[in-house]
Amino acid sequence: MAKARSALPRSCICIVFTALSLVCVQAQTDPLPSWNDTAPKKAIIAFVEKVTKEGTPNFVPADQRIATFDNDGTLWVEQPMYVQLAFMLDRVKQLAPKHPEWKTTQPFKGVLDGDMKAVAATGERGLVQLMAATHAGMTVDQFQKIVTDWLATAQQPRFKRPYTQCVYQPMLELLAYLRANNFKTYIVSGGGVEFMRPWTEEVYGIPPEQVVGSSIKTKFEMVDGKPDLMRLPEIDFIDDKEGKPVGINQYIGRRPIAAFGNSDGDQQMLEWTAEGDGQRFMLLVHHTDAKREYAYDRESSFGRLDKALDEANARGWTVVDMKKDWKVVFPPGI
Amino acid sequence: MAKARSALPRSCICIVFTALSLVCVQAQTDPLPSWNDTAPKKAIIAFVEKVTKEGTPNFVPADQRIATFDNDGTLWVEQPMYVQLAFMLDRVKQLAPKHPEWKTTQPFKGVLDGDMKAVAATGERGLVQLMAATHAGMTVDQFQKIVTDWLATAQQPRFKRPYTQCVYQPMLELLAYLRANNFKTYIVSGGGVEFMRPWTEEVYGIPPEQVVGSSIKTKFEMVDGKPDLMRLPEIDFIDDKEGKPVGINQYIGRRPIAAFGNSDGDQQMLEWTAEGDGQRFMLLVHHTDAKREYAYDRESSFGRLDKALDEANARGWTVVDMKKDWKVVFPPGI
Repeated sequence: MAKARSALPRSCICIVFTALSLVCVQAQTDPLPSWNDTAPKKAIIAFVEKVTKEGTPNFVPADQRIATFDNDGTLWVEQPMYVQLAFMLDRVKQLAPKHPEWKTTQPFKGVLDGDMKAVAATGERGLVQLMAATHAGMTVDQFQKIVTDWLATAQQPRFKRPYTQCVYQPMLELLAYLRANNFKTYIVSGGGVEFMRPWTEEVYGIPPEQVVGSSIKTKFEMVDGKPDLMRLPEIDFIDDKEGKPVGINQYIGRRPIAAFGNSDGDQQMLEWTAEGDGQRFMLLVHHTDAKREYAYDRESSFGRLDKALDEANARGWTVVDMKKDWKVVFPPGI
Repeated sequence: MAKARSALPRSCICIVFTALSLVCVQAQTDPLPSWNDTAPKKAIIAFVEKVTKEGTPNFVPADQRIATFDNDGTLWVEQPMYVQLAFMLDRVKQLAPKHPEWKTTQPFKGVLDGDMKAVAATGERGLVQLMAATHAGMTVDQFQKIVTDWLATAQQPRFKRPYTQCVYQPMLELLAYLRANNFKTYIVSGGGVEFMRPWTEEVYGIPPEQVVGSSIKTKFEMVDGKPDLMRLPEIDFIDDKEGKPVGINQYIGRRPIAAFGNSDGDQQMLEWTAEGDGQRFMLLVHHTDAKREYAYDRESSFGRLDKALDEANARGWTVVDMKKDWKVVFPPGI
């Protein structure tokens, strides 16, 4: 031992000290600078520190640090309507010249006339018709290109910028903070899985294989002599409400230890997460900031937060008051 | 520059050289010691070296290095019958005392009498009945325990040891070699996803979230006041043949650059993999070794290899001749 120690030259010791001090500086840097120092931020940091502290009963091995995030209203804006709905309406308008019959047939007529009441009156059957006309009948690669092209030009109507820039800066920091602590971050959304996968890696740092969502059926077939996957006009899976724990089990096969949502569609995901052993973290984003973003909850058509808010309050889940708890809403410089 | 260089002490230079020589030693170690130096091994190594060489046209970024592996007959033994079928038959026998009616009702009577012809005569309907009786009606956690308990005691009939020890050593080395080169390794199997997930991490180093397989439906519900996922007696998805590219797209959302199988059930997965841009690697394990394992192909009931073998030969995919190309079949010391 003595020999080994004496063989360590002064310069090596310097290197070690420099490395250690770098670690210390990093630990002291605020991992969530866009969050005010209110209860939610403290609760997040306390949870992460607990589950990552080796040798304690709360320690969770890295491979079990699964965190699931809803997308609409949790990571990006869902008002004045779900982004995917805006995509669907735009696509009907774009395809209309090839479908003269849409001028007189609901729900298409309603979309073209801007008469959303007429669209809503067609109910689920109408929605499935719209989905089939806009989301099916092409290969998965073609659909990916359609989504990418649309997102490159479409704008959020209030903020006048691409939807992919209407993401919440505090949540981006939270995703990065969890990953820095060896969490695997997943999206678990009611939105279409193939509507999200083309851009989640660039925008959130979440790769396609960590995106769980609703899906339509696809079929392997030969197209011009080449194998391809065609999108069929048939719903395969709805990843919302009771569907979220089902989707998590199906895709991930492990129960999350942390789950983040903002609406009643996330309630079962949070319940499922809460029920596991050991430390658990459940959080809801409450949209309370009409000035910087939107204020809505129990009465909203999109992202209604009612029963889940009651349950969160009753069970002590963390509720983010956007106005009070977030220093900024959107990424700076946009 | 000169100043910076003179500031580098001799000991640091030593450290750098030591590190470099460690890297060299590692590069010279054979990553596939159980493979003979025949064409398949050379083809695997050539492919991996090509796609990992930065600055060349063949380079593939790490996040796109997706490799998919069939399980039955590719990673573990599938003779004299699929392991999951053995599990199902054992489970019928175990549950029989609670179901006296099975003594006189097919396909259960056939299973209890060891009359597989009678079972086969009940066709797909019979198989679904067996699946429903043995794989459904419990929570996902309960099923996981049933599988784990069974695997802990069941033995492969010829090799007289647990099924999880009847895995192919050369394939374990291949999985490790790919992961060492930043590939993400997935199982894509016709077997039940929840039959595999409890043990793939320990046996193959593949975590549950990287296992794609066939599934039955599950339902979120309250059991004794607690949220749980119940397994329903209804097929959700068959991850075989045309289903494999569908499953890959559904779960992973990216096309693999390398795919490994052993039967006609893998043909479409290999076709789908082959069709992507850039370097691709497709491999079939051909069971040619009756002495050390089993020899079967075009006429086998389990893992039939017929059309896929013709396509592999026609298109120059790599075919492993188990007898000729593998030094050992099973892990040493078992």
